[in-house]
Amino acid sequence: MKGLGVGLIGTGYMGKCHALAWNNVASVFGDVARPRLVTLAEVNAGLAAEKARELGFSRSTGNWRDLLNDPEIDVVSVTTPNAFHPEMAIAALEAGKHVWCEKPMAPHFQDAVGMRDAARRAGRVSAMGYNYIQNPVIRHIRRLLDEGAIGTANHVRAEMDEDFMADPAAPFYWKSEASSGYGALDDFAVHPLSLLFALFGHVESVVTDMVKPYATRPLKEGGARQVENHDIASTLFKLQGGISAVLMANRSAWGRKGRIALQIFGSRGSILYDQERMNEFQLYLADGRAEEQGFRTVLTAPHHRPYDRFVPAPGHGLGFNDLKTIECRELIAAIGGEKAHLIDFEDGLRMERSVHAMARAFNERRWVSVSELED
Amino acid sequence: MKGLGVGLIGTGYMGKCHALAWNNVASVFGDVARPRLVTLAEVNAGLAAEKARELGFSRSTGNWRDLLNDPEIDVVSVTTPNAFHPEMAIAALEAGKHVWCEKPMAPHFQDAVGMRDAARRAGRVSAMGYNYIQNPVIRHIRRLLDEGAIGTANHVRAEMDEDFMADPAAPFYWKSEASSGYGALDDFAVHPLSLLFALFGHVESVVTDMVKPYATRPLKEGGARQVENHDIASTLFKLQGGISAVLMANRSAWGRKGRIALQIFGSRGSILYDQERMNEFQLYLADGRAEEQGFRTVLTAPHHRPYDRFVPAPGHGLGFNDLKTIECRELIAAIGGEKAHLIDFEDGLRMERSVHAMARAFNERRWVSVSELED
Amino acid sequence: MKGLGVGLIGTGYMGKCHALAWNNVASVFGDVARPRLVTLAEVNAGLAAEKARELGFSRSTGNWRDLLNDPEIDVVSVTTPNAFHPEMAIAALEAGKHVWCEKPMAPHFQDAVGMRDAARRAGRVSAMGYNYIQNPVIRHIRRLLDEGAIGTANHVRAEMDEDFMADPAAPFYWKSEASSGYGALDDFAVHPLSLLFALFGHVESVVTDMVKPYATRPLKEGGARQVENHDIASTLFKLQGGISAVLMANRSAWGRKGRIALQIFGSRGSILYDQERMNEFQLYLADGRAEEQGFRTVLTAPHHRPYDRFVPAPGHGLGFNDLKTIECRELIAAIGGEKAHLIDFEDGLRMERSVHAMARAFNERRWVSVSELED
Amino acid sequence: MKGLGVGLIGTGYMGKCHALAWNNVASVFGDVARPRLVTLAEVNAGLAAEKARELGFSRSTGNWRDLLNDPEIDVVSVTTPNAFHPEMAIAALEAGKHVWCEKPMAPHFQDAVGMRDAARRAGRVSAMGYNYIQNPVIRHIRRLLDEGAIGTANHVRAEMDEDFMADPAAPFYWKSEASSGYGALDDFAVHPLSLLFALFGHVESVVTDMVKPYATRPLKEGGARQVENHDIASTLFKLQGGISAVLMANRSAWGRKGRIALQIFGSRGSILYDQERMNEFQLYLADGRAEEQGFRTVLTAPHHRPYDRFVPAPGHGLGFNDLKTIECRELIAAIGGEKAHLIDFEDGLRMERSVHAMARAFNERRWVSVSELED
Repeated sequence: MKGLGVGLIGTGYMGKCHALAWNNVASVFGDVARPRLVTLAEVNAGLAAEKARELGFSRSTGNWRDLLNDPEIDVVSVTTPNAFHPEMAIAALEAGKHVWCEKPMAPHFQDAVGMRDAARRAGRVSAMGYNYIQNPVIRHIRRLLDEGAIGTANHVRAEMDEDFMADPAAPFYWKSEASSGYGALDDFAVHPLSLLFALFGHVESVVTDMVKPYATRPLKEGGARQVENHDIASTLFKLQGGISAVLMANRSAWGRKGRIALQIFGSRGSILYDQERMNEFQLYLADGRAEEQGFRTVLTAPHHRPYDRFVPAPGHGLGFNDLKTIECRELIAAIGGEKAHLIDFEDGLRMERSVHAMARAFNERRWVSVSELED
Repeated sequence: MKGLGVGLIGTGYMGKCHALAWNNVASVFGDVARPRLVTLAEVNAGLAAEKARELGFSRSTGNWRDLLNDPEIDVVSVTTPNAFHPEMAIAALEAGKHVWCEKPMAPHFQDAVGMRDAARRAGRVSAMGYNYIQNPVIRHIRRLLDEGAIGTANHVRAEMDEDFMADPAAPFYWKSEASSGYGALDDFAVHPLSLLFALFGHVESVVTDMVKPYATRPLKEGGARQVENHDIASTLFKLQGGISAVLMANRSAWGRKGRIALQIFGSRGSILYDQERMNEFQLYLADGRAEEQGFRTVLTAPHHRPYDRFVPAPGHGLGFNDLKTIECRELIAAIGGEKAHLIDFEDGLRMERSVHAMARAFNERRWVSVSELED
Repeated sequence: MKGLGVGLIGTGYMGKCHALAWNNVASVFGDVARPRLVTLAEVNAGLAAEKARELGFSRSTGNWRDLLNDPEIDVVSVTTPNAFHPEMAIAALEAGKHVWCEKPMAPHFQDAVGMRDAARRAGRVSAMGYNYIQNPVIRHIRRLLDEGAIGTANHVRAEMDEDFMADPAAPFYWKSEASSGYGALDDFAVHPLSLLFALFGHVESVVTDMVKPYATRPLKEGGARQVENHDIASTLFKLQGGISAVLMANRSAWGRKGRIALQIFGSRGSILYDQERMNEFQLYLADGRAEEQGFRTVLTAPHHRPYDRFVPAPGHGLGFNDLKTIECRELIAAIGGEKAHLIDFEDGLRMERSVHAMARAFNERRWVSVSELED
Repeated sequence: MKGLGVGLIGTGYMGKCHALAWNNVASVFGDVARPRLVTLAEVNAGLAAEKARELGFSRSTGNWRDLLNDPEIDVVSVTTPNAFHPEMAIAALEAGKHVWCEKPMAPHFQDAVGMRDAARRAGRVSAMGYNYIQNPVIRHIRRLLDEGAIGTANHVRAEMDEDFMADPAAPFYWKSEASSGYGALDDFAVHPLSLLFALFGHVESVVTDMVKPYATRPLKEGGARQVENHDIASTLFKLQGGISAVLMANRSAWGRKGRIALQIFGSRGSILYDQERMNEFQLYLADGRAEEQGFRTVLTAPHHRPYDRFVPAPGHGLGFNDLKTIECRELIAAIGGEKAHLIDFEDGLRMERSVHAMARAFNERRWVSVSELED
């Protein structure tokens, strides 16, 4: 069996993460052909060559379009800055490649629509890099919900907090420009949204508040500049099936490093999760003697698939990069025509629509139905 | 120095709690005259006599109005069901007594207005039983905020969750009737609201969502009855000074027993608190070397006043009832003309106004300014 | 029904705690006659009078022997420094009083033997102040063990750590003198030992290591003085029935404030406890589906008796002083001839014997059987 | 630069882990030549071929001795059952290969001596697979200790607990045979011992207790068999420099999955660590205002090297397998003649000596000096 031929565009944070996943997936899972790391593209030939050597790609190029016509390449990883996603993803799909694109789809909603349309036309696999849904913990929570372990879910709270924008003395940079997006809302609230989507489906109507904790930020050259978007966003909404949800995102939350916290309440129990302790979850079941009921902290173990592919012993822990390896395995399954646990461009677009509806609700200070946003 | 003469109306959950506080306050603090537990009123003379004996009151009565004309009584504790608060509190104030009334003021806003007006007219001390603000932890958080330890606060999240309404098989009872109030919103969201008030001041504008996790509840006699209010409420709002806040309350939250959780984010740090672990808080300070920054769990200790009055050793822990003893000490201070840390009927009314504004925002599905509600 | 007449000797940390308990017990429990706080004894008449007023005693004295012949006094609380316990407790017993004595019994083993002998001769109730065993959590753990919830217990680890001796710059004081005892071993390892006794019975053979983290401590007047005992003690031992145990005590453990931690391992589950979070325990049960097994954090609630006597709502929390009130209720039961949950002088002596055996094991650098120490 | 040629013997739990590390190390670190995965050896040619394909090795063999004379192989990973380590490691060293051997060295002390001697003679790199010392948290703790952040360390407690032997109904298997070793003591107490070694150096004198929680275990074919070693071991000892330590290991500890917990107490602070939450540690510093002192939970981040090589964002988490990749990088450094953070056969032997001294202390029921065991 010949492994997939892989092209990679971009070698930043997520580019390296993709490369590690492509490099690892066969050894970890043992049931797929080893991908061939064919060509790596970077902004210039020199950097591309250096990174290809580091990351194990056979060839390199300073022109990403070289990947499009290479028949050895079956799938393209797009890990460049968000603004480049539409052009690259659409071109790759039109060239007949499968595409694995980092989130979010695009800064502008219509570009995301274009990506979705291209995927529809191409009939190729289009996968978004929402890797947190691959955590065995999240998969197990989904299983518990499906089994009715906590009865009928009726309320969810989701938080995503980091502190990379928390320091008011840090210089102004592009993340505070309006052109980069709404701020916390689309910069990273999409992560908890991906979890809510994977667990509960889509968002229906929303109301939002957003805050600028710092009106200005200092310029490196002296003086200060107005901040143009919002580091804090809070939103109330209804999910499919009527579940009420609260989504809170704060990228200026001192002390939070990678918090993506869920609280799920149901008619027979509750589930808690926090990505900062990604190898555990908490479960409360309203059964047994009341005197011993409590939130139980469950550590991931081989029986939480596919943890078993990484370590055969319980409680030893997966890391962030392992989630991308799982996502890669799902992508290979999808390309092979199997059912896979992925967010494709179709669902990705629905998530982007939710985000834009949230922003509109804030701007117009009212409840907005997601269906108001047409493709 | 002669101690205050105390009358107590009601001996349920909070009635006993008041009695313990009156009984304890002098021994704990050592700096106030021992209150005289004069008369206890209950619904009938027999129960009143029994409870007076148990709780250490000298006399008892089945008619609470007997307290009003008793010159030995200086202050009246009102701990009856909410609907009785206005009549009793107003009568006591009009009789020249100081009043210590359990929260909330009254089911109807206009009754609360009447209580506030009576307090204004009487010129007596009127104190609400928002005992959580007395936790030495909350007092210390206030101190930290005042000192600027976490810089300028810019965002707050508050949660209050319990599970006494979580079981859908539990029979319908009065808490699900519309006449009892809005549900989670006024039933207990007032507690976290009291903390926000103590720490940050008043609410300005709000938007709210509420949910009925169970549309009906079974009747003891068979069949089922429509639930008339909402066990889950979520609200976004602005506080004085522009701080954005999220307030979430859920009385059907399986596994939560007495959770009142705060997350306070500022420009130089963050503070976390949860009443379920009432003897600790978490503090993140963005100072020192980055490699060792983290949320520190601080256990209460004698230097967190007035913990020292209860135990001279750190980390040994106060209990729920101790908060009421501290509140009692504050009340005695207020009666003595000293500055005290209390929520009086004036501030209590402003809190009630916020709650009614939240309900209106839900009913009218729009942002509501608290100032829309006139006295 | 006439309440017990109470005499109190000492008004320090534990004296106040006893006074609060005597003052509270009737109101909290509602099923015992209100004790009469008759006479308080302190080192001089002035202090005694002041403290009697604060703590609600009718009379006061500068001579504790005045309590012995007072027919109104039924029971004497002895809360003076340890060296005074034998003389006072024995005198009170010989005067026909019941005695409630703070731990430990006495610095010297033979004095403790004398106390036990006096209690035997007097036929009065002799109770030690090991209040941690009164925590509803500990009582519930005992119930779980009795029920076999975790199968057969086979291993226990107990830790007691505080940091009041942690600062090497703090001046030398009497706790570092050999005359005050062995150090951590008898200064406070007796607390976790009381829990082990309450849960599992007595100690059989031991081996011990002890450490002086600081060889000298500074004198206030300048210079330094040799430390004469050990702030850290670790011991391995066997309990009745063959359970193996590790007991660790450190009074120079920076960051620990009131940690008394237990880890109990059994054939079907495990139990964890830490007094710093005294209102919860953790329980792991090896039943149900493996995928959801985990340590559950159980918050105390009314069904964990006698929590219900303090608060009718779960998860609201007891405090350190409440444990003494429970102990007081047990003492009243014992005096009334009922079965009570107390450590009397008989069991107290067996605990002291364990401690002395531990010290001997360290001094002689060998395993020591507790039975080597004769009365 | 040509990468190291790698031979791997064994493909179980640790064999796969080594393979992943060899496969990953160049991409993760970016500063070493990509190792060449040359030959994989398993018990038969068929399995070897299958595993070689899965794990990315070019060749395979059913005879591990084939690796010895292959000039393309520079380094051999030995991941077979413990009993095979001496023969394989010694043969590889004698063939001039570097050796990376899983822990422990050997069931019998004299075999471990032979391995150490072979490493001395060969002058090749000999590395033990004590991967927990590679956790960036442990490295940072080492840095904190070196900097004196917590002053002078004076006491350590180490625990290692899992529950794979906790079920008394599980059938007897080889881990309960005396021939497999002492039980918990050498089966896995070596892991926390490796941490103590990395942080504090070697063990000097010991006293030990061990327990069989279950005297017999059922046989699959019916009946039961005597358990021949001990699932629980507790030991007191002195470390170099006089630090007192307690080491506790329990492989029948229900609920513990991969707990390796350290408590380190010093003259100015304390450090806590638990491998079950391997991406964080707790630090208490006795500085700043007392009111805000507490254990801070520090999440790993890029500044905790070499976390940065895996993820550029803080708090995102490494996994168990990542530790082996770090160890692999250290091994490559050592082979390149650089200073590396590894436990070689020299230090490994000293650790084994400690373990055997602990067992002797138990058997002879006395304190044993590690120096009693000669090479």
